[in-house]
Amino acid sequence: MTEMFKCIENVHLSDDGKSLVIIDQTLLPGKREFLTLSTREDLWDAIYKLRVRGAPAIGIFAAYAIYILSLKTDAESFDTFYSEFKKNKEYLDSSRPTAVNLRKMLNRMDDKVVSLKDLSIPEILDGMKTEAEKIQQEDVEICTAIAEYGLELVKDGYGILTHCNAGPLATSKYGTALAPILLGTERGMKFSVYADETRPLLQGARLTSYELTSAGVDCTLICDNMASIVMKEGRINACFVGCDRVAANGDAANKIGTSGVAILAKYYGIPFYVFCPSTTIDMNCETGDDIKIELRNPDEIKSLHYEKPMAPDDVKCYNPAFDVTENSLVTAIVTEKGIIKPPYKENLRKFFENERV
Amino acid sequence: MTEMFKCIENVHLSDDGKSLVIIDQTLLPGKREFLTLSTREDLWDAIYKLRVRGAPAIGIFAAYAIYILSLKTDAESFDTFYSEFKKNKEYLDSSRPTAVNLRKMLNRMDDKVVSLKDLSIPEILDGMKTEAEKIQQEDVEICTAIAEYGLELVKDGYGILTHCNAGPLATSKYGTALAPILLGTERGMKFSVYADETRPLLQGARLTSYELTSAGVDCTLICDNMASIVMKEGRINACFVGCDRVAANGDAANKIGTSGVAILAKYYGIPFYVFCPSTTIDMNCETGDDIKIELRNPDEIKSLHYEKPMAPDDVKCYNPAFDVTENSLVTAIVTEKGIIKPPYKENLRKFFENERV
Repeated sequence: MTEMFKCIENVHLSDDGKSLVIIDQTLLPGKREFLTLSTREDLWDAIYKLRVRGAPAIGIFAAYAIYILSLKTDAESFDTFYSEFKKNKEYLDSSRPTAVNLRKMLNRMDDKVVSLKDLSIPEILDGMKTEAEKIQQEDVEICTAIAEYGLELVKDGYGILTHCNAGPLATSKYGTALAPILLGTERGMKFSVYADETRPLLQGARLTSYELTSAGVDCTLICDNMASIVMKEGRINACFVGCDRVAANGDAANKIGTSGVAILAKYYGIPFYVFCPSTTIDMNCETGDDIKIELRNPDEIKSLHYEKPMAPDDVKCYNPAFDVTENSLVTAIVTEKGIIKPPYKENLRKFFENERV
Repeated sequence: MTEMFKCIENVHLSDDGKSLVIIDQTLLPGKREFLTLSTREDLWDAIYKLRVRGAPAIGIFAAYAIYILSLKTDAESFDTFYSEFKKNKEYLDSSRPTAVNLRKMLNRMDDKVVSLKDLSIPEILDGMKTEAEKIQQEDVEICTAIAEYGLELVKDGYGILTHCNAGPLATSKYGTALAPILLGTERGMKFSVYADETRPLLQGARLTSYELTSAGVDCTLICDNMASIVMKEGRINACFVGCDRVAANGDAANKIGTSGVAILAKYYGIPFYVFCPSTTIDMNCETGDDIKIELRNPDEIKSLHYEKPMAPDDVKCYNPAFDVTENSLVTAIVTEKGIIKPPYKENLRKFFENERV
């Protein structure tokens, strides 16, 4: 189990507290290398080059990164300190313009700094460190709560199919879709997990199968097109997937291929569960039709990682990064605040109404 | 169009008639190289190393190969000639023990030689050449007939999704599932074809997209897990797949992932057609449950073609090569002798009864 706990601390402060240590996800699974980062350029690059990835992990990284950079200050007044902070914030924010959580957590650190403006610089720095730790701790709590709710849905010995990567490397502790599997395993439960390799970027092959085998979970890697046969052969009791965005009607956008898994699960009568922090549910987005699908570079299909050409150089490729799973295919949505079941339009509304009470 | 016709003559005699010329399929799509083969070792190797592949293409290749080797004889008596023939036959047959069509066509050449035993050696050799040409010609006729029947199922402008490779490289002319697309294109019809890359061996990426773009067909390569989104987006009017074996109840075994495509097609209300020579229908095989699925080397998933490790070295992989599509998912089976529709148990029986009459 120790291996897992080392692995999931994929973002943390160095022993001297002046650098940020991460596992370089671009080298996985071939090489497990920790990077110690303290310069502006290295910190920026780590986000830009996807050495750290996954919305929660990027947010935690950014909070610590802006603290690390602020430590270098010589400023004696708040105004000078804050103007340096703003420059560092803007710089870090430019590393991945579409990563919502990056900006969100930098803004949270900004609010913190402003709220402490009457204190001394060392006191402000202490406050920043505490806030970054709080961001990380909150994510650990969310993952743990998701894990607990998820465990209500499984039995010891379950075969579980998962798609893409929704594990510790993308978050801070257990991940989302992998959370019940990892927490259950810690408690001595046994699962047989089938991990879709998840073309084109192979997050399932590179990351999920790495995380699960590291944690001692019985994990079998399959190609995406083998999901049907493993379901038919009775190897799967439930499907667990993460999620990038849930619409107000329960339509769920996630990594390309997720909707196909959901359709197969429905055909074979297997429950299909979506796992996410409740902040992923966007009540301002009416249905999945309102979610714009990112189209990525065709080279990801044609040549990524390959030494020989795997397709004609001039062949046209269509490379959508995500798809939307229709609400009718989703058995339940599992969040840190509870499990939501159909009818989603009504129950998601109630879920958030209760919260506001 | 010329490019296509060159491409589909992937097995033919050299100009001097003493060698066999093939396109080396292991180098596609990076390199389009023709090999001229005449030695026992080179001919054996071409089958063993999959330089030539696809049941019909292997059968045609074997028939020509045994003729080429027989040409080298110094024998003056039939007994000597036939004993050399038997050795060559046994040797070629050992190149791919599970390729049924290889043995079948070598047996057919054997029967031919025996039937000509009272003629002179040059006359026997002439008879062998004619028989090999006949085997090839019969395959051309089968592909053309499948193409004609398939064209009854499509309209100009159709979007067609295909999985794996069932085109000219595996056969002699148009292929099976790709036959209507290629014949229709020759006649000026336009199709938008989506080719699943077909992990792990990437036959769709390497071969199908090569054949179709070579023939001037509008072809878009997608990852297997993108079939759901292209169907949902309304890009697909029909699915065309080949087939390795059809059971008496219409269950159809084909490349891994085919059953998943069929389930998605059913969900989205898209017709799903299986294309094959009528010899592929095995009336002695009651249902798909009687078809044994070949399990292949996990390295095909973990490392094939990759320069960096794409999965942990010690991760377990499940690598079934085929799956069975349930008859309820098959809209029609298209053969050279006609189109068969459900109920399959009844209609397949009638199909073969009529044939016997």
